[in-house]
Amino acid sequence: MSTANNTDFLRLPVTEIESKLIQVLIKHGFSNNKAKTCAEIFIGNSLDGVYSHGVNRFVKFIGLVKDGLIQPKVDAICKHSVGSIEQWDGQSGPGPTNALAATDRAMELAAKNGIGCVSLANTNHWMRGGTYGWRAAKAGFVFIGWSNTIANMPAWGAVDSRLGNNPLVIAVPNKGEAIVLDMAMSQYSYGALEVAQLKNEKLSVPGGYDEHGTLSHDPAAIKKSTRALPIGYWKGAGLSLLLDILATILSGGLSVLEISKDGIEAKLSQVFIAIDINKLGNFKSIASAIDQIIEDYKQSVPEKEEKSIRYPGENIMKIRKDNLAQGITVYKSTWEEIQKM
Amino acid sequence: MSTANNTDFLRLPVTEIESKLIQVLIKHGFSNNKAKTCAEIFIGNSLDGVYSHGVNRFVKFIGLVKDGLIQPKVDAICKHSVGSIEQWDGQSGPGPTNALAATDRAMELAAKNGIGCVSLANTNHWMRGGTYGWRAAKAGFVFIGWSNTIANMPAWGAVDSRLGNNPLVIAVPNKGEAIVLDMAMSQYSYGALEVAQLKNEKLSVPGGYDEHGTLSHDPAAIKKSTRALPIGYWKGAGLSLLLDILATILSGGLSVLEISKDGIEAKLSQVFIAIDINKLGNFKSIASAIDQIIEDYKQSVPEKEEKSIRYPGENIMKIRKDNLAQGITVYKSTWEEIQKM
Repeated sequence: MSTANNTDFLRLPVTEIESKLIQVLIKHGFSNNKAKTCAEIFIGNSLDGVYSHGVNRFVKFIGLVKDGLIQPKVDAICKHSVGSIEQWDGQSGPGPTNALAATDRAMELAAKNGIGCVSLANTNHWMRGGTYGWRAAKAGFVFIGWSNTIANMPAWGAVDSRLGNNPLVIAVPNKGEAIVLDMAMSQYSYGALEVAQLKNEKLSVPGGYDEHGTLSHDPAAIKKSTRALPIGYWKGAGLSLLLDILATILSGGLSVLEISKDGIEAKLSQVFIAIDINKLGNFKSIASAIDQIIEDYKQSVPEKEEKSIRYPGENIMKIRKDNLAQGITVYKSTWEEIQKM
Repeated sequence: MSTANNTDFLRLPVTEIESKLIQVLIKHGFSNNKAKTCAEIFIGNSLDGVYSHGVNRFVKFIGLVKDGLIQPKVDAICKHSVGSIEQWDGQSGPGPTNALAATDRAMELAAKNGIGCVSLANTNHWMRGGTYGWRAAKAGFVFIGWSNTIANMPAWGAVDSRLGNNPLVIAVPNKGEAIVLDMAMSQYSYGALEVAQLKNEKLSVPGGYDEHGTLSHDPAAIKKSTRALPIGYWKGAGLSLLLDILATILSGGLSVLEISKDGIEAKLSQVFIAIDINKLGNFKSIASAIDQIIEDYKQSVPEKEEKSIRYPGENIMKIRKDNLAQGITVYKSTWEEIQKM
């Protein structure tokens, strides 16, 4: 992570960041428990190298608490429960604690019935969707979850944004760790466009259209046109639409359209599905089946000799280890702001 | 549908095709009931304009029956059942009847527990995944389903195919009809590349790499390199991998790797998840919520004035109506072959 040069960021030990974040959260109305959970999630995201949704995002998060968009004191509550599905209301509470509660509840339902589905209305940004995939998969569950967002991507063939980039997370257990796919429906997030622009870099594949309607590798041109490209063109646009419809109807919450009316990303709708692999029939070893698939995948012949073929989330364990040893990377300016909070 | 000119295909009434297909299926060992169900699925796919997986595919299907890869007499059986999940063995029976049984069973489980998940090992090609999405959504269920396939797509950054294009289907009810996303993980199927090549057309977006490793719009070049492009580059490759892992471990069946060993696409693994929307809490009208989303989506400003913005499956009702009135489009050569069966 860097936007300019090395003097722009610090590497700080987990304990130092954690105690500071907890202190700030408590000061802004969080209970001790909730402050600890939230701090752990922000730090976990930074530890795993997802800096955009880790400690660097903390100042913005506290800003939303100050603005009253995130209610620090509330918990998500169950509004409707039948069999293996439950519908929860996030009551505008913190996105990370709401999403964690929904994930844990989906696992409880799955432990009972094989599969559990918890939908969550009126919640806030969950930060990094992968957090919940890792959580469930490390506990022995298959996880499928997604969120809607504010409108930030046009339908296929359109110029105005009416779709969210609605991140989708799929995770499976893997040797005590996990294989975690965490992908938004746009080829690049606006955060990634921002970083590329600051580094004065072109995108490796087209990320959207410029103002003339031409596919572009230029992050600045795409930010200007606001025409981010859905993955797979018409396919990702269709998938985004369906994920929004599902999140909306399953939770009874707001759609991308409704969320976008005020221009502020709040009151999101999310879905959390867990499947307990211990409830499956004992036909063959699940661990060996996954091993075999990954081993074959890793034997792929790379186009460029020096490149290894990685599975989703593969790098994270190495990054985490490095960050634990060397300290978490935080923008210097962000850390200075947090210090003053 | 056309590969060359209009003299290459016929338009035949449903009843004429149906009685012939049923007759051929019975002759090849299908029971009356199973023959009727299979014929309906092939015809339904052609009616809906998915000609590649409709009547035009029937000759190939019967070929697999003759080769013993599809066992016409067997039914899928439940091997393991706990709460809302079941694992079935397709016993190498016909892909369409196996998939239909799994869909119907997922709906039964969902009607009881809100959500139901049926996985299916050792099955055959389901033809068009959308069939099962339409089936469930028209009955009032949300549907999420996918299949693995033979390896036909490289991992991201690789040149050899170790991933399937693993079609994913998501469907929701919509005014007695449905919104159905039915998408493979490659930007184009090999069938679509074939059709474009026969028409001497370039692809509208890059569909893969040529032999020099350059992104290409040329279907022939991609067929030659066998480097089809995953949707969203690294994202679709990751999604394909996860869908295969999930299908394999949830069903206890074969992975893309294992399926591909003999070079014949058989013994596939599939997953069928249904959610009964009637079991959801009565917070707001689901029909109006979907209406509102679609209405807004349709108001997208098109890049080209004459183009309307369509949702997944929108065109199908019109195509179906036209085909019912004008007759189903079938290759003349295919129909001649079927006549002789």
